[in-house]
Amino acid sequence: MRHVSTNRPFVIRRGASLWPACQKWSASHLKSIMGDEPVNVAITPHGNADSVLQIPREDGEEPLSLFVKPYETMEPFSEVLDTIRTQQILNASPRPPSPVRYLQTQNDNLRNEYTKLFSDLPSSVPFARIALQKPPDAINFWLGNSYSTTALHKDNYENVYVQVLGKKHFVLLPPVEAPCVNERAILSATYRPVPEALSSTPATGDPSLSATVVPHIDEPLTYTPFCTWDPDVPHRNTTPFSSLSQPIRVTLEPGDMLYLPALWYHKVGQSCNEEGICCAVNYWYDLEFGGGFWSMAAFVRSAGLLALPEHNHNGDTKTEERKVPSQ
Amino acid sequence: MRHVSTNRPFVIRRGASLWPACQKWSASHLKSIMGDEPVNVAITPHGNADSVLQIPREDGEEPLSLFVKPYETMEPFSEVLDTIRTQQILNASPRPPSPVRYLQTQNDNLRNEYTKLFSDLPSSVPFARIALQKPPDAINFWLGNSYSTTALHKDNYENVYVQVLGKKHFVLLPPVEAPCVNERAILSATYRPVPEALSSTPATGDPSLSATVVPHIDEPLTYTPFCTWDPDVPHRNTTPFSSLSQPIRVTLEPGDMLYLPALWYHKVGQSCNEEGICCAVNYWYDLEFGGGFWSMAAFVRSAGLLALPEHNHNGDTKTEERKVPSQ
Ligand SMILES: O=C(O)CCC(=O)C(=O)O
Ligand SMILES: O=C(O)CCC(=O)C(=O)O
Repeated sequence: MRHVSTNRPFVIRRGASLWPACQKWSASHLKSIMGDEPVNVAITPHGNADSVLQIPREDGEEPLSLFVKPYETMEPFSEVLDTIRTQQILNASPRPPSPVRYLQTQNDNLRNEYTKLFSDLPSSVPFARIALQKPPDAINFWLGNSYSTTALHKDNYENVYVQVLGKKHFVLLPPVEAPCVNERAILSATYRPVPEALSSTPATGDPSLSATVVPHIDEPLTYTPFCTWDPDVPHRNTTPFSSLSQPIRVTLEPGDMLYLPALWYHKVGQSCNEEGICCAVNYWYDLEFGGGFWSMAAFVRSAGLLALPEHNHNGDTKTEERKVPSQ
Repeated sequence: MRHVSTNRPFVIRRGASLWPACQKWSASHLKSIMGDEPVNVAITPHGNADSVLQIPREDGEEPLSLFVKPYETMEPFSEVLDTIRTQQILNASPRPPSPVRYLQTQNDNLRNEYTKLFSDLPSSVPFARIALQKPPDAINFWLGNSYSTTALHKDNYENVYVQVLGKKHFVLLPPVEAPCVNERAILSATYRPVPEALSSTPATGDPSLSATVVPHIDEPLTYTPFCTWDPDVPHRNTTPFSSLSQPIRVTLEPGDMLYLPALWYHKVGQSCNEEGICCAVNYWYDLEFGGGFWSMAAFVRSAGLLALPEHNHNGDTKTEERKVPSQ
């Protein structure tokens, strides 16, 4: 509660190491429990689910920015697991393989798709249950390999993130750094398989393994507000405030538990265990909308947006004045 | 802690009623314990310690605003108590009496000037000690009558306020309402006695009782940022946001305990008990400067100041443009 009250993150090293999931799970255990159960899998060409893609255009034109959601499809768990592992372990080429699969449904999948695994997890995290005084809104299962990255974003949730297998690498920014992340309304798109690619992939025998997916702009046209600054490429897509950001970096090892407070920006990369997988679970608790936190954070974010050069008429007075016609 | 985490006030009705202070204190008890001990007393013409005074000026000129601090002097406790009571009980005139005395030193006076009374109080408030995990920075004793009012202001403290005798009437505004209170940098002054008045007051025999005090501008000139909007006179001294304020009003009765969260604006009036006094104590705990609360609240306040008409060049574009000389 003291950490919630100051909206500050912390890690409990090995805090979940006695959970049955952390004791029992492995690639073969997961496969034996889940078998061929169909699960929702996110497919992207480069492990870039829910992220901004720059599409080059004709000479002289600015590239088109798209916020691209993954192609979601149902596949048997055992096959997805094998594909993820094989890709990780057998990829010898210096170029990352494509496409990349990530089990990342974020829709309370542990109490739906993965009920068979849920018995190895507590129904809430004890410290969070006491501090937040509510049950979790969603409990999610994540399974991928090192080719998947989750782009910088924030959630309206208090998040307790538990690493089970492999490692997750978090980059964290507090809500007051909203003016650093260059949030923009980006045209939304979704990856879709290219039908020809699907049918012409003799290499593996399984066409879906090397299927290419390409972005299709969503209709009706929608714009998603999303961070366009990347703390790992800090000199590109900056706002006047980006250089002031002080990202916190933390790596979770198996059994570690991260309290990621509501509205903190996070970018997440992953490393695999010796089996070639990275697996985690997390608990989302609704944030407290009473009190001043949410409204003040929203205000800071809005003020940051208004301070961007294209909105900032004050910073531009000279130019503005020259435009005033003489009377 | 849950209330601290959301920065929201609450009252524990009768929460301090078993404290020895709430059981034992009365005008005569206080007098018997403190006797003629000299104490620091705040003297003002109208019960307006630490508040903004408008001084009328020549025709056509704007009145001069002064932030006036009380005249502080040492007087025997028993005499101050009698003066406060007598003024409350014997004042028959429709005009409020002048000057007004208020014991309100706010400098940890209970552990200094009023040590003899401090043994009737806990050294910290149990729930606050646990929630805030620090000892109080100051424990204050307040004794006055209904003629004193504490003007709207905020403190960098978590405040636990305990009513002992009489009633206190709080008006509370959350920190997000900073843009409503019309904070201004006001020229600082201090009340000082008028020497002639001191020596020509045959009415009571005690010249200090009816001494007039008048404001003297402090030197070197200093400006104090202070609220100029009064939630009880909501149509005067407004900002464009004042009408959006939603003040919370709460009256503390003897034994009641108010948690007044850090940075909340508060205006405080008082009513006396049948003995003609109003007495309270409060505990100030340093606020938490870590986390985003303090910085976000400061940002909201600064943005509110910049949005005032005189700073808001955007709102004024037409006028500005007309000033641009033709080229
Ligand atoms: O593990 C990931 O890839 C992302 C996690 C995340 O964004 C979250 O838990 O909110
Ligand atoms: O009791 C009063 O007159 C004012 C109290 C106050 O301002 C405080 O406790 O901070």
